[in-house]
Amino acid sequence: MSDIDYNSLDLSFIQVSFDDGILVIVNKVNARNTFVASLIPELVQALEYADKDDRVRVVIFTADHTAPAYCSGANLSDAWHWNGIDPDTIADHDYRDAAGQVSLAVLRCRKITIAAINGNAVGAGATALQLPFDFRVAWGGAKIAFPFASRAVSPEGATSFLLPRLLGYSAATALLLSGQIFLPTHPLLNRLYFTILPKREDVLPAALTFARELASSTSAPSIVATKALLLHAPSSAEDAHIIESYLFKKMITGNRHDLVEGTQSFKERRSAVFTDTVDHMKEWAPWWTSLNEAPRAAKL
Amino acid sequence: MSDIDYNSLDLSFIQVSFDDGILVIVNKVNARNTFVASLIPELVQALEYADKDDRVRVVIFTADHTAPAYCSGANLSDAWHWNGIDPDTIADHDYRDAAGQVSLAVLRCRKITIAAINGNAVGAGATALQLPFDFRVAWGGAKIAFPFASRAVSPEGATSFLLPRLLGYSAATALLLSGQIFLPTHPLLNRLYFTILPKREDVLPAALTFARELASSTSAPSIVATKALLLHAPSSAEDAHIIESYLFKKMITGNRHDLVEGTQSFKERRSAVFTDTVDHMKEWAPWWTSLNEAPRAAKL
Amino acid sequence: MSDIDYNSLDLSFIQVSFDDGILVIVNKVNARNTFVASLIPELVQALEYADKDDRVRVVIFTADHTAPAYCSGANLSDAWHWNGIDPDTIADHDYRDAAGQVSLAVLRCRKITIAAINGNAVGAGATALQLPFDFRVAWGGAKIAFPFASRAVSPEGATSFLLPRLLGYSAATALLLSGQIFLPTHPLLNRLYFTILPKREDVLPAALTFARELASSTSAPSIVATKALLLHAPSSAEDAHIIESYLFKKMITGNRHDLVEGTQSFKERRSAVFTDTVDHMKEWAPWWTSLNEAPRAAKL
Repeated sequence: MSDIDYNSLDLSFIQVSFDDGILVIVNKVNARNTFVASLIPELVQALEYADKDDRVRVVIFTADHTAPAYCSGANLSDAWHWNGIDPDTIADHDYRDAAGQVSLAVLRCRKITIAAINGNAVGAGATALQLPFDFRVAWGGAKIAFPFASRAVSPEGATSFLLPRLLGYSAATALLLSGQIFLPTHPLLNRLYFTILPKREDVLPAALTFARELASSTSAPSIVATKALLLHAPSSAEDAHIIESYLFKKMITGNRHDLVEGTQSFKERRSAVFTDTVDHMKEWAPWWTSLNEAPRAAKL
Repeated sequence: MSDIDYNSLDLSFIQVSFDDGILVIVNKVNARNTFVASLIPELVQALEYADKDDRVRVVIFTADHTAPAYCSGANLSDAWHWNGIDPDTIADHDYRDAAGQVSLAVLRCRKITIAAINGNAVGAGATALQLPFDFRVAWGGAKIAFPFASRAVSPEGATSFLLPRLLGYSAATALLLSGQIFLPTHPLLNRLYFTILPKREDVLPAALTFARELASSTSAPSIVATKALLLHAPSSAEDAHIIESYLFKKMITGNRHDLVEGTQSFKERRSAVFTDTVDHMKEWAPWWTSLNEAPRAAKL
Repeated sequence: MSDIDYNSLDLSFIQVSFDDGILVIVNKVNARNTFVASLIPELVQALEYADKDDRVRVVIFTADHTAPAYCSGANLSDAWHWNGIDPDTIADHDYRDAAGQVSLAVLRCRKITIAAINGNAVGAGATALQLPFDFRVAWGGAKIAFPFASRAVSPEGATSFLLPRLLGYSAATALLLSGQIFLPTHPLLNRLYFTILPKREDVLPAALTFARELASSTSAPSIVATKALLLHAPSSAEDAHIIESYLFKKMITGNRHDLVEGTQSFKERRSAVFTDTVDHMKEWAPWWTSLNEAPRAAKL
């Protein structure tokens, strides 16, 4: 699909621009970029479009670098009604955390995703708007905090799955239980950031340059396959071998354009021009079990 | 529960003191602080009390900083009869590793746990008395070693679960197969220690300062929820989203004291005074499967 | 078993030498050490011999340090027919990735394995010939690359299992999706290498010195047990406790030679002389589920 018109989107909390394979989404929620419920449908919509639009190769999420924060987390004056609903009136099992909805939408986007963290990232700003992305490019002065225990709540945004996977449990435990503020250069955050830049205003340009490199040097079906292998992790070496063999076989069979171009451009020492789309891999039988996270219907 | 009298404990191998929310347990096993079977019931008892006592917010385990070691591991003159039993006379499936019993007791304590490693930590000293804790504060000169392969035994203390989870398999494999001595600053141990101090005598004071900060700045139900999410890891992003949503809903429903205080203190830019206890979360249905590790009864 | 004659092996793509407990396998595929199908049976055979030969304590895989590469990955002029078969003529589910076959063979070797990476390692050279080994000793100038997305294929060599386990998902995702070239000292590869040396020619000697230390200081049954615990990871702390207890009990029962020697040599402050073989542990019931990765038979 490649006929989506991003200008036709009716947006109030984010701003979207598309150029040369790269979709940039700018957080425009409010002055402090708090994490509000109204952000969710707009962001989920933009990510779903990016997922389906064959022209989009990379998605960048960022904020205005002059804003007080990349995302300062929940607006505490809402008394945690950030899903737009009153938690006292909804059944326990029907509540769905707002940050988690965003995390799942980012994880489901089959294109490369980059968070360009050019300001402080706190709470949902440090979870949903940072952890599910493939790459994180950050301003070295950004304050990163997971202050759930200090606000008397529990972690959200699928953080209990994402943070230990990204960094291991020693770092995840220290980050979540201490509630302290860390800079991107702190050893506990080592490897979370692909690039750390000294100036706020340089973060988005650096992310754009990197995105352009990725957009032109990677084949879309390879990215889908790699992301799926990483998200839906095989449970053993044998399991990985069987799944990888199947995907690899699908990749190297036939004379599909990108395969020939990948080899040819390598031999000719020139940049490749990849055109295959995610559709090439649509015959895969998914090897993973899907869990439907939607609130249950009235009956089991 | 808050009527436990720590002075009434009959202790020979550890020393316990409680003040201002913090329970300090000092290893007093013997001159070299070897890991002996008699340590287990005393340590397990102290941890169970800390778990139940609402006044306890943080538990610190440490040793006398003038002792030759934080814990020097098994006393090899016992010929590995460190569980107080003769391994030749017990059925294979009824034996339970002593270090593992301590690791499980630490993991089951719902309060924040800190290991203040102010001396050499070898064998069980580097496994059970270090890995299951939430935070590790260490003396930079402490010799850390996992010499199982050099002593012709296998790893204990639930290390095969804990070490790879904390640091990844590249570090875990290198640490366990090399059997070498490492200092806390070694790259393979990167992120294992929250703080590394140059002097032995500064380790416990630093741990105490950090413990006081944690005790006053974190809400007990948040700590229970976060620790449970980390120990009983959701298996996918969707699974995490559903579990986190349920816990979050329980956290933000009603006007419970700590939730209001967390928001109020933040707005007023003052320290919070949290009073909710672990009981607030007692209605949770645990989402994890429990495995009873007790030796089997006579029949299956 | 200890009557294998390594000189009797009929080898064209690797060179094998055995001395003093250490089997050294040298990649001799061709000028650029590309990864070819013919390498597989020779390498698998050598690893199986090393696994069974009680004299072998450590296996080192390396290349000629004057070669252009340790392993430069697939020969792209083969159009990815590197398994020696035409992917267009084989059923999807019967194809087995060549790199994955090597990874599984390395993982199944019950002796300590070391990759001595004294040149560039790309594609299968960075996956199968690096990740499944217990230790990696590398030349600091070696170019390490996982360029699957840039060649329009998907990851192989059981990489989707191995790379995140070794380094976590933040590093694994960045390495696999960026397709960039990294040096062993790059933060994303932190902890992947046990030792990094400035000169190519020093890598194999350093690996040999380390191998000799390991061969003389570790007991074979301990290595088998530790490697099995790491590869077939327990799923919870309780699970680990039960499995570790059983293995530990087997280790400390009876007066087996290495156990007595391990204690005795420690007390006498001398090097141990270990002689027990992997057979000591052969009564274990494996605690893991095996997945047969061989291509399916004609019928399910």
